[in-house]
Amino acid sequence: MTWTVGPTNSLVDVAGVRVGHYTRTDDGWLTGTTVVRLPVDGAVAGVDVRGGGPGTRETDLLDPRNLVERVHAICLSGGSAFGLAAADGVMSALLTDGVGFPMGGPGEVVPIVPGAVIFDLGRGGVFANRPDSSFGAAAYAAATDAAVAQGCVGAGTGAKAGGIKGGIGSASTVLADGTTVAALVVVNAVGSCVDPRTGHLYAVSLGFPGEFPEVGPIDPERLAQARARAAEEVGPLKPALATTIGVIATDATLTKAQCAKVSGIGHDGLARAIRPVHTMFDGDTLFTVATGARGADAAPDPFAFHALLDAAGDTVTRAVGHAMLAATSVHPPARTIRSYRDALL
Amino acid sequence: MTWTVGPTNSLVDVAGVRVGHYTRTDDGWLTGTTVVRLPVDGAVAGVDVRGGGPGTRETDLLDPRNLVERVHAICLSGGSAFGLAAADGVMSALLTDGVGFPMGGPGEVVPIVPGAVIFDLGRGGVFANRPDSSFGAAAYAAATDAAVAQGCVGAGTGAKAGGIKGGIGSASTVLADGTTVAALVVVNAVGSCVDPRTGHLYAVSLGFPGEFPEVGPIDPERLAQARARAAEEVGPLKPALATTIGVIATDATLTKAQCAKVSGIGHDGLARAIRPVHTMFDGDTLFTVATGARGADAAPDPFAFHALLDAAGDTVTRAVGHAMLAATSVHPPARTIRSYRDALL
Repeated sequence: MTWTVGPTNSLVDVAGVRVGHYTRTDDGWLTGTTVVRLPVDGAVAGVDVRGGGPGTRETDLLDPRNLVERVHAICLSGGSAFGLAAADGVMSALLTDGVGFPMGGPGEVVPIVPGAVIFDLGRGGVFANRPDSSFGAAAYAAATDAAVAQGCVGAGTGAKAGGIKGGIGSASTVLADGTTVAALVVVNAVGSCVDPRTGHLYAVSLGFPGEFPEVGPIDPERLAQARARAAEEVGPLKPALATTIGVIATDATLTKAQCAKVSGIGHDGLARAIRPVHTMFDGDTLFTVATGARGADAAPDPFAFHALLDAAGDTVTRAVGHAMLAATSVHPPARTIRSYRDALL
Repeated sequence: MTWTVGPTNSLVDVAGVRVGHYTRTDDGWLTGTTVVRLPVDGAVAGVDVRGGGPGTRETDLLDPRNLVERVHAICLSGGSAFGLAAADGVMSALLTDGVGFPMGGPGEVVPIVPGAVIFDLGRGGVFANRPDSSFGAAAYAAATDAAVAQGCVGAGTGAKAGGIKGGIGSASTVLADGTTVAALVVVNAVGSCVDPRTGHLYAVSLGFPGEFPEVGPIDPERLAQARARAAEEVGPLKPALATTIGVIATDATLTKAQCAKVSGIGHDGLARAIRPVHTMFDGDTLFTVATGARGADAAPDPFAFHALLDAAGDTVTRAVGHAMLAATSVHPPARTIRSYRDALL
């Protein structure tokens, strides 16, 4: 295998993709919004919704039968369905910048901003504190092509998974032919990212050599404590507690249908990193965006597309691992949510 | 056939359903929002998206595989994708009223408000004048169980179809067994509701006896003029000019999957009233909501469900006819858009 990790091992290794977070953690708040900005001409996009409790907008236009081919940003947010409002702020900012689907006249554009949300209501202590359009505008303004900030930032601010603190994670892969595929995930699951038999993150076993160096032997006593806390945290189930969402990006030239296929195999990457996942209390949704920067001549043949799909799944898995390792313990009024590092390393 | 028209021949003939419009037509504006409010416990819902350029939110949760069974309102709005913001205002108002999917604590609810939008940007003269969350809140507050106001109101304010003024239309049918099915549509289509051979509305031929009394012989000269104006208005095509959206409501007890089926056959009703429809420049979307007020014991058997489907299609067709007959000519700065009445009756 001649695949390598990209320069920043994060979503921005796909040229033209920028990521911005807006994070709010002051009194009563523990939520935020993450915006993936795309080139001004947009990127071809697809989606696969696999969770049983999704919160989404502008996903129907991504059906390969439908007209709009390119999206201009993806908005990921906390706040459950309320957080869909964050995309309004992204749309307004894009309109101001003149970026969108052209409607004829100068400056007359409709920005295409699909979005999905995670459930994190009340994690900062106040149920009604949730992102609004200003969160989307702020995350849009903060977008940069620097290595993606990970852990408890943006849409991952209030995330948790299996009783342990979740968050934002990202990873990238450069294929043998030079194609880059990268992923950004907001890990917030009913299920767990930790193998209860060993205390290791499921994702770590699929890392590149040296990608997860901090993971050594797990202390049996700490493992027992973590198991007990996780059991207490996870059960009894409350409805709609979770949802893992994310964006896969590539510089390959793909159709909308191929983007949807990449999202689908990305969900396999989630399945290898989170157990269980895609439950009725998760709204797991993955978008895929293809910038086509490598040119139409470089559109993948079936075997190159196979390699891209294979890499996309593992890249999503690795991104989940980075999310869990970057997350830090939080101490909102309600109760402490321990990070994986604090619980087990 | 022992079917009859309901008391108001509009959506509110389904008990517990209320409709509110917010309309803005002052200088530079020609748009609005319509909210369909449902009983506080919500209604089972489904959707069918048939147009090639949809703008939607919260449709993925309506997949019959997914957790959430009931929605609390449907938000229909002008403003193209920008108008999806109107649903934010509906959600906030429902939260204030304590209505939503229960999350555990007192007042801790997530209102479920699917929505769809029509393209009407710039019809009032200013491209950037589009509904925001305040439109949704105002339409929610205005909701009433009085006979639905039709024509150039709410989400139909800026609508047009085939070069003629469109708008909101509604109709209802009471089946032999007492089940009510009703429809509200926002007619805004690339195609035309008028048969170019006769000048008649396609929909009128499917009306109940006496339902469309105002339609008599068409003057050949006015028909020729209308044809010429329609040709000028419709062509050359600009992208994403249109979209017909709507809500079908019934007091039957249906599953989510059955609601989606009702929406699907509702699109056949659009097909009989608008030609062409469901094009790549229409984002045609129909929601169906079932209150179940007739009780689980009255859940339709296959033959009763067949009758409901049959009636739903024709009810949608008739609603389109009422939309076109209720619409009035508008004279925004850009140009006059004539109503069907002014053009042909």
